[in-house]
Amino acid sequence: VRPLEDTLARIEGPDAETAAAARKAIDEKTKPRGSLGGLEDMAVRIASTRRTLDLQPLRTAVVVAAADHGVASEGVSAYPQEVTREMLANFETGGAAVCVLARRAGASLHIVDVGVGEGTSNIAVGPAMSRRDAVDRIERGIAFSRELSDEGIDVVALGEMGIGNTTAAAALCAALLRVGVSTVCGAGTGLDADGIAHKVAVVERALAVNAPDPEDPVGVLAAVGGFELAFLCGVALEAAAARLVVVLDGFIVGAAALVAARLSPAVTGSMIAAHVSTEPGHRRVLQALGLEPLLDLGLRLGEGSGATLALPLLSASVAILEEMATFESAGVTDAGR
Amino acid sequence: VRPLEDTLARIEGPDAETAAAARKAIDEKTKPRGSLGGLEDMAVRIASTRRTLDLQPLRTAVVVAAADHGVASEGVSAYPQEVTREMLANFETGGAAVCVLARRAGASLHIVDVGVGEGTSNIAVGPAMSRRDAVDRIERGIAFSRELSDEGIDVVALGEMGIGNTTAAAALCAALLRVGVSTVCGAGTGLDADGIAHKVAVVERALAVNAPDPEDPVGVLAAVGGFELAFLCGVALEAAAARLVVVLDGFIVGAAALVAARLSPAVTGSMIAAHVSTEPGHRRVLQALGLEPLLDLGLRLGEGSGATLALPLLSASVAILEEMATFESAGVTDAGR
Repeated sequence: VRPLEDTLARIEGPDAETAAAARKAIDEKTKPRGSLGGLEDMAVRIASTRRTLDLQPLRTAVVVAAADHGVASEGVSAYPQEVTREMLANFETGGAAVCVLARRAGASLHIVDVGVGEGTSNIAVGPAMSRRDAVDRIERGIAFSRELSDEGIDVVALGEMGIGNTTAAAALCAALLRVGVSTVCGAGTGLDADGIAHKVAVVERALAVNAPDPEDPVGVLAAVGGFELAFLCGVALEAAAARLVVVLDGFIVGAAALVAARLSPAVTGSMIAAHVSTEPGHRRVLQALGLEPLLDLGLRLGEGSGATLALPLLSASVAILEEMATFESAGVTDAGR
Repeated sequence: VRPLEDTLARIEGPDAETAAAARKAIDEKTKPRGSLGGLEDMAVRIASTRRTLDLQPLRTAVVVAAADHGVASEGVSAYPQEVTREMLANFETGGAAVCVLARRAGASLHIVDVGVGEGTSNIAVGPAMSRRDAVDRIERGIAFSRELSDEGIDVVALGEMGIGNTTAAAALCAALLRVGVSTVCGAGTGLDADGIAHKVAVVERALAVNAPDPEDPVGVLAAVGGFELAFLCGVALEAAAARLVVVLDGFIVGAAALVAARLSPAVTGSMIAAHVSTEPGHRRVLQALGLEPLLDLGLRLGEGSGATLALPLLSASVAILEEMATFESAGVTDAGR
């Protein structure tokens, strides 16, 4: 059995019994029922994914996968391709946004070079990679996720870096969601209206040339995806199999999660959407995943910055579950609502 | 000069020069310009309020003002009035939501009894308090805020506790915003539709009986407000005078902030809205204050829980400002966008 098949076979989704126990515990806390809204739902989701109410301290990891994209040669980004490698160095020396945010959140940060320099082929003229390469990158992600799980990590926040990768993500989402290309193409790192129009044309060519089959998620990934997208898809799949919580960042991570969800719909039950970005395709992806974003701050950086920024909210939700007094323990009158 | 007049005379609002310096510093960081959206705006707001770019570590305090409301006797809450006192004890022993969240955020927590037991008079039959009492409670808030400022606090998160206080806040907002009572009355701690209709009728009686003048914020506060609302208004005013950042919680804190803003419009420049609650009046209050909420998680607990939950986002924003590498220091190609 290949690692991918093995991982898919092990995915069960969150546990309903633990979810009910977590909800009951929260309902006994000294506050009107449901009055912490989404924070309560998050605690229930984390508990039911981890299959325990004993969650503190929440051990969090941030995985940033970096790769280059052949389609960058079409001029679809405001930044030149060498920025992918330059940013890799910036990640290593701790100067990038995600480094700062991971330090503040107390999360371990893992930078993975999945193909910087030796990137994908240009999707505007042919497939990004072979199907074998796509499965290989997914399985590298699976292996990486297994290491995190073996280390005792509870929560994995996903991030990416790769000049040109909003173009690949747009192609992937247009194919899988069967929506118009213009509805999923945005400014990326900072295109103007002409730049976005050019990006739309490039994605349309990529879809015409490759004609990916929406019913074949790995085929779509190989045709118009990217190495970091495949890797993150693998991380998300094995995280679900190993009962880790997955925190999504922006549009590109969302596209990788969408491929994972098409391979195994149950994975969305252990996912948390950190934020909704300014990329127009992101909201559509979150709708397709059935996830409500925690933050709406106009973020559009990527790197896992939004996912990492949201990690303290997850820690707060489990603290509420574990540390608050109950009506009974505190002697507070319960109106039962 | 009375403390209130002195405080009002000292309010200057954020400093434009520091704001420009903070924006310039952020624009030099290794990320596309503006790509951290609201997080960048928050860092600029904090820096321009504190008048420095040297902000770490951000010292944060949570102030929870508690008081009783005579209008609770009209049956406007799902909980009996004694819950105010019971929750005061729960705050002291650390079991309430805000206690848990303040510990996680590393914020000092200050619980202030501004009139528990000896609450306001029933606004449905006459004024909540005399004008003298309103000014007295505002000035107690001013004195408290001065202590926090003397202790070197940078950020004050505001919270409240008081059975019946969404009713007082609704009356206050309806009067000051000149909007229909039903647009600012919600479920509070958990009223059903009949309960809300009764609450609307009670607020309409309060406004008819007291006929507060919308041009006289202190008069409105005395007529239909509450002791904790007056206290928090005072905390917010002196915080602005002392150049502290004020983090707003939900509808009730928003109503107190609205009174402060009517007394001195410049105070809103140093305010941050942590979240928008499910109370229908809250969004209107935030619009009137010109503030965009950071979180929209369906919170409706009060206590300062939402404001405290948001504190790590503020710390993250100043970490971005101070710790990220610049394009120059990291040797990353800058596309200038």
